[in-house]
Amino acid sequence: MITLYQQHDSGNCYKVRLALSHLGLPFRTVAVSSLDGSTRRPEFLVKNPIGKVPTIAFEDGRCLAESNAILLYLAEGTLLLPADRYDRGKTYEWLFFEQYSHEPAIAVRRALSVYPQRRAEATPARMAQLLEAGNRALGVMEQRLAGAAWLAGDAFSVADISLYAYTHGAADGGFDLAACPAVQTWLARVAALPGHVPIDAV
Amino acid sequence: MITLYQQHDSGNCYKVRLALSHLGLPFRTVAVSSLDGSTRRPEFLVKNPIGKVPTIAFEDGRCLAESNAILLYLAEGTLLLPADRYDRGKTYEWLFFEQYSHEPAIAVRRALSVYPQRRAEATPARMAQLLEAGNRALGVMEQRLAGAAWLAGDAFSVADISLYAYTHGAADGGFDLAACPAVQTWLARVAALPGHVPIDAV
Repeated sequence: MITLYQQHDSGNCYKVRLALSHLGLPFRTVAVSSLDGSTRRPEFLVKNPIGKVPTIAFEDGRCLAESNAILLYLAEGTLLLPADRYDRGKTYEWLFFEQYSHEPAIAVRRALSVYPQRRAEATPARMAQLLEAGNRALGVMEQRLAGAAWLAGDAFSVADISLYAYTHGAADGGFDLAACPAVQTWLARVAALPGHVPIDAV
Repeated sequence: MITLYQQHDSGNCYKVRLALSHLGLPFRTVAVSSLDGSTRRPEFLVKNPIGKVPTIAFEDGRCLAESNAILLYLAEGTLLLPADRYDRGKTYEWLFFEQYSHEPAIAVRRALSVYPQRRAEATPARMAQLLEAGNRALGVMEQRLAGAAWLAGDAFSVADISLYAYTHGAADGGFDLAACPAVQTWLARVAALPGHVPIDAV
């Protein structure tokens, strides 16, 4: 059985639980967090030298980190990764967009808003810059979803799982989705799928 | 033939030229850059709504963006992507590490150091923070390469291509590789491969 080292309310960790749920794979969780320093302890750093969650461990002890890398690993050979080569390429594109242009704005603005430990970083200039970058990322999603049901190809994939994680909680970071009706419809479409689990489900 | 929209001295664009060279695939290039605003022009935004290079276009007009997504697309079914599932997962892990923890420090510090258009952003606090984050990323690479010839699995892969691009020019951003002897040896190992091309090759 897979062991998921995670902080439960992290969107990056939620992505992995969502994929495991859609694939019907059993797993157990172990709580580790940057907020209490446990991701920097030696016993965790041997699992992931970058000291970040999510990290998964297989039964043989080997580990894999980076949320979107875990998604791709789990999705290979399943319906969560498009069979068409170009659509698979677009899936990769959305996953890297998520980690470079979406998560660093939307997830970080949420973290600076909700975690008292990080409130000192929430300067007005930083928050304004994160708002602008996050709205730009949401605009890119809106442009795609105004003309398509799913982000990559014509079916639900790990691209949707990855982008759902922080988009569905964007309001926690002060983002207003009123200007993104297609994104809102897509969020409801994802949440209505069989196998979907909310972020706060145990 | 593939068309590569690129800024020639960008490491992200260099990654794609390196992969195309190793795979022996013919391509043509078109110069587009954020420095002169051409990545924000409407005729480029229809190719890539995020307005970034590299972007590749296929003969049928369809496009693909995000450097590491292009690498994965090109590498599928070739020796540049490990055949073993776990090693492929580690390849994904290194590619996301590159875009989240390595490029935003090492490439950005280089850009703030070498492009006059970006010098105003190079405040002492920003440069110190980028130096620390970049050295942390280099330390993660050093830890792996002290005990292995290649980043993922036991052969050269797109993980090496991706990390080579900005690591080999890290000195331009003020990074000192003296503390990373295994990284230095790996850089020489990559550069000695048949099919390798330097970043300034036309």
